[in-house]
Amino acid sequence: MLLLIPGPVTTRPEVKAAMCYDLAPWDRDFASITVDVLERLRDLAGGRPDQHVTLAIGGSGHFIIEAAIRTFVPEGGKLLVPVTGQYGERMMRLAREAGRVVLSLPVGETERVAPEAVAAALAADRSIGHVGLVYSETGTGIVHDVEAIGAVARAAGRRVILDAVSAFGAMPLDLVAQPEIDAALFTANKCLEGMPGLAMAVARIDRLRACEGNAQSWSLDLADMWHNGQVNGCGYARFTPPAQVISALRAALGLYDAEGGRQARLARYQANMRTLRDGIRALGLHPCVPDAIQGPIVFNVLAPHDPRWDLHHFVEALKRRGFLISNFYNTRLPSFRVGCIGAVTPDDMRRAVAAMAEALDEMHIRTRETV
Amino acid sequence: MLLLIPGPVTTRPEVKAAMCYDLAPWDRDFASITVDVLERLRDLAGGRPDQHVTLAIGGSGHFIIEAAIRTFVPEGGKLLVPVTGQYGERMMRLAREAGRVVLSLPVGETERVAPEAVAAALAADRSIGHVGLVYSETGTGIVHDVEAIGAVARAAGRRVILDAVSAFGAMPLDLVAQPEIDAALFTANKCLEGMPGLAMAVARIDRLRACEGNAQSWSLDLADMWHNGQVNGCGYARFTPPAQVISALRAALGLYDAEGGRQARLARYQANMRTLRDGIRALGLHPCVPDAIQGPIVFNVLAPHDPRWDLHHFVEALKRRGFLISNFYNTRLPSFRVGCIGAVTPDDMRRAVAAMAEALDEMHIRTRETV
Repeated sequence: MLLLIPGPVTTRPEVKAAMCYDLAPWDRDFASITVDVLERLRDLAGGRPDQHVTLAIGGSGHFIIEAAIRTFVPEGGKLLVPVTGQYGERMMRLAREAGRVVLSLPVGETERVAPEAVAAALAADRSIGHVGLVYSETGTGIVHDVEAIGAVARAAGRRVILDAVSAFGAMPLDLVAQPEIDAALFTANKCLEGMPGLAMAVARIDRLRACEGNAQSWSLDLADMWHNGQVNGCGYARFTPPAQVISALRAALGLYDAEGGRQARLARYQANMRTLRDGIRALGLHPCVPDAIQGPIVFNVLAPHDPRWDLHHFVEALKRRGFLISNFYNTRLPSFRVGCIGAVTPDDMRRAVAAMAEALDEMHIRTRETV
Repeated sequence: MLLLIPGPVTTRPEVKAAMCYDLAPWDRDFASITVDVLERLRDLAGGRPDQHVTLAIGGSGHFIIEAAIRTFVPEGGKLLVPVTGQYGERMMRLAREAGRVVLSLPVGETERVAPEAVAAALAADRSIGHVGLVYSETGTGIVHDVEAIGAVARAAGRRVILDAVSAFGAMPLDLVAQPEIDAALFTANKCLEGMPGLAMAVARIDRLRACEGNAQSWSLDLADMWHNGQVNGCGYARFTPPAQVISALRAALGLYDAEGGRQARLARYQANMRTLRDGIRALGLHPCVPDAIQGPIVFNVLAPHDPRWDLHHFVEALKRRGFLISNFYNTRLPSFRVGCIGAVTPDDMRRAVAAMAEALDEMHIRTRETV
């Protein structure tokens, strides 16, 4: 079974094998594994040892996003969030429930965030301290222009919290060149091709120092995590970490380097996406997002306008053929969502498209026109 | 290498093997695995389908303890916490940082919580809504009397939040008989002999309903998790769960049943603890805790009063012999901490004691008197 969802992704056998040990999280040997992983991720983010640190917690991406908001945005502080889709909305909800003030910036579901719109919103409200930005919107697959939007925030003297969950490891990131970014947030189980259960931030040390006491949550306090690393060593977690998932991530990072690093991984994902796009077009189906802003991570295909169309039937028919795609809608116009990431290749995507053709035939869907 | 720490524990090969798959958390097949695990855990807690539900989040035990405090204790609400040791103190810190009022009840480090002291504290302050109780204090290994302390809270019309992290699966629990308990909290990687990265609550449904909107955190809101389960099905998590850890827990629960369930597991842990205790006494060493209140989960041995004693040297010497014990102190009087839980037997404990004898000889520690 190949997972063609936006994560957790299909992983290589070496990654799974790295989990098959009993590991003691506070043992010195394990601490050195942890330090190795954290330092490699900092470097991958374009961070510098004297300016940035990687902080890891067990759990999902949502936890690290809430932790970053709590840590960097003080209680009652204001966060501007471009509503890129479901994940933009999730960031807003995390911030609101944590008692932060959220200002939403509307964005068309199949459009990129316009840097000028962010600039105008920041100019109109001096009380906005932060922009909360989703790099790759996992709902639609659109990748936003972090460099341009970051530059706007920098020019306006504001800070950025970057949800890089489905972008990190494939899309470029240079935290030294973008000092307005307090933290870039991501998980082990998307473009890094590790296992779920570990969420991370690469964060600015000066900002962590400045933000002690903000979080109103011990569990989700990045400043306290940094402080703990200073006292106990950054390989020693505050609370029991998911040691096997960290071990799997180290194996995944080894495979990442062996593949040729970020650019090679991005090239493979782009090839996966293009193969899928060409394939679904040949089937008479249509992408949800314009080609010019379609990212290489997640691809949505508009559901055929046919009364016999049924997402669950389609998902189950693909599953019987060895491919697992997302089984719920994420966009206003119904579209089925396919992940282009994980240990899969353009050949896998060709086989997936062939399976889609069979599934559509099985469902007697001949009209491939979309809504 | 055998892990003799208080968790993560040594696991059986079947548990590790259950992680070696790519799993899609929102797939129907995986949802049915999750439901199976959650229902078995509810039953294990003595819960009833119409009264109780198991809620699981990725991450460590601290996260679920903070989540329970946020959910059941409203902002500004008061929690009485008997200071049983490090884990009692951790519960206090989690509650304080979440903006709840904490009243600490002093307890001697080598004593059990006295139910009469809890009754007196509750009688003295009508504004205390909850007692936060650690069942098995992982710092010292003392197991507290949940039935008696719960009865006191019940009689006084107060609620209980039970940190059962290192007790669950071995010590008895009957949530139907103890309706004062809002939630019992635990993880996969202690007496259940699963992997780290998953924290759970068995909680009262009526209380979850009554506590909507309390949490001030979307990530750590048990009422919202329950609500999500009602809407989407309780096998479908709100956020990406650590699917491999859930799969490992299902395998671990199969082995648990095969062993004979809770009583068989408790009997093995008790035999492990007694073997260790007899063994260290034969070496001239002394337990930290009086026999009458020593629990079967964690065992502390007072450090020898010898200038050549060095915890790290001792830990590394045992590690070379295949046994990993805790490498930091948890008690006021220095004591080394040994876990009696996990897939280990009295024979393993005998071999561990023999390794301790060798390690002490290697360190030239002949005076086995303690401080």
